[in-house]
Amino acid sequence: MKRLLIIGIGAGDPDHLTLQAVKAIAATDVFFIVDKGEVKHDLVQLRLDLIAEHGRPPYRIAEARDPERDRAAPAYAAAVEDWRARRARACEALIRDELADGQTGAFLVWGDPGVYDSTLAIVEDILARGNVAFDHEVVPGISSVAALTARHRTSLTQVGRPVHLTTGRRLAEDGPTADDVVVMLDAHCSFAGLDDHHIHWGAYLGTPDEILIAGPVAEVGERIREVRAEARARKGWIMDTYLLRRLEG
Amino acid sequence: MKRLLIIGIGAGDPDHLTLQAVKAIAATDVFFIVDKGEVKHDLVQLRLDLIAEHGRPPYRIAEARDPERDRAAPAYAAAVEDWRARRARACEALIRDELADGQTGAFLVWGDPGVYDSTLAIVEDILARGNVAFDHEVVPGISSVAALTARHRTSLTQVGRPVHLTTGRRLAEDGPTADDVVVMLDAHCSFAGLDDHHIHWGAYLGTPDEILIAGPVAEVGERIREVRAEARARKGWIMDTYLLRRLEG
Repeated sequence: MKRLLIIGIGAGDPDHLTLQAVKAIAATDVFFIVDKGEVKHDLVQLRLDLIAEHGRPPYRIAEARDPERDRAAPAYAAAVEDWRARRARACEALIRDELADGQTGAFLVWGDPGVYDSTLAIVEDILARGNVAFDHEVVPGISSVAALTARHRTSLTQVGRPVHLTTGRRLAEDGPTADDVVVMLDAHCSFAGLDDHHIHWGAYLGTPDEILIAGPVAEVGERIREVRAEARARKGWIMDTYLLRRLEG
Repeated sequence: MKRLLIIGIGAGDPDHLTLQAVKAIAATDVFFIVDKGEVKHDLVQLRLDLIAEHGRPPYRIAEARDPERDRAAPAYAAAVEDWRARRARACEALIRDELADGQTGAFLVWGDPGVYDSTLAIVEDILARGNVAFDHEVVPGISSVAALTARHRTSLTQVGRPVHLTTGRRLAEDGPTADDVVVMLDAHCSFAGLDDHHIHWGAYLGTPDEILIAGPVAEVGERIREVRAEARARKGWIMDTYLLRRLEG
């Protein structure tokens, strides 16, 4: 039987790696890298650094090119489904062709594999297709949400109150659905205008490029937009997330 | 200046510890343990085991007795506030009396310090009182939410959709507020009757006592209630959490 590990590697800081993840990397024979192309090159390099540090030779790295996703498609979920189906076929080929019976393969996933990441769904797609069989395990990781609140030294939750985790698109459509809302995957600064909220914002969390800004949206919102646009232009990509908290009174 | 670390140690598995947490424990001069009394003795012992493994001598352990919380109080938030104020005084005394200038003290926090944990709020209380000054840093940890979804090999989020994190009391009052809801701190199996939902339930996550049950609430709900009651009676305490996902169609 083949064995597949889906390893959460944390939000960007190599020291976010858990001891469980270190052991999982050391137990891996073949690392699967699906390259998203040049703009995400930094992210691939960080994965390769972790493998170089914690992998136990002999190991191999098997790469596939990520299919392009239609980011302009109006039907977001449908576009993601289509991209995911093509990505599943690419990953299926990797597992089928590059991993022998008795070997352990691994995908290294940014943050936590359970939080807005496609790898688990892709693995389920592959298993459902039934062309290749394997056991799989998931290693949890420090999500960008945990990294964000830790770096801001604030709590995600307030006593006995809910927190909603959502996307930029949803926030733009529905507005804040609770007093505390965490927003991910927001390319459009959808917090703009929410002047009765406090924001804890962070980009490139855990990396040397980390940027943190916090304050009332009315005071810091415009600065976040500017800083974000400048950083994105300079690096070619950005990953950021934020916690909105309704101001009292 | 005194330095205080609030270190997330993960959901129960000693290997949930991040490399950052390992380094933070190694850098600590004084570990603060606030003992919740006999019923939570297992949890204190797990902390002591982590300190013994990763602490770098010479270090000290300073203990205080946790004030009792009135768990029967109808006003939950008020009861928590009162308990937290008394706990803050106990922690303030520890930091004032047991930590010298230039030394590093640490609280080891289960899961992630940002997720339904009181330590960060207590530290803010202490700083606001102004009787003792210190720098502080937060080290994120694997939350029981991340541990739950990893062990069930399921994603917390679905593509482009929100997930709500809430408490048992809130679920009992408001019902499920989204298709995907994570519930913590539920002593009363408030999922009962939610027969149009699937549940991923886990207790003592990451420990040798871990219990996992998943399935439609209509099929597994009663079994979870029985297993939970039996385990709680046998061990004297239980920590559990679950993900509710609305069934389609």
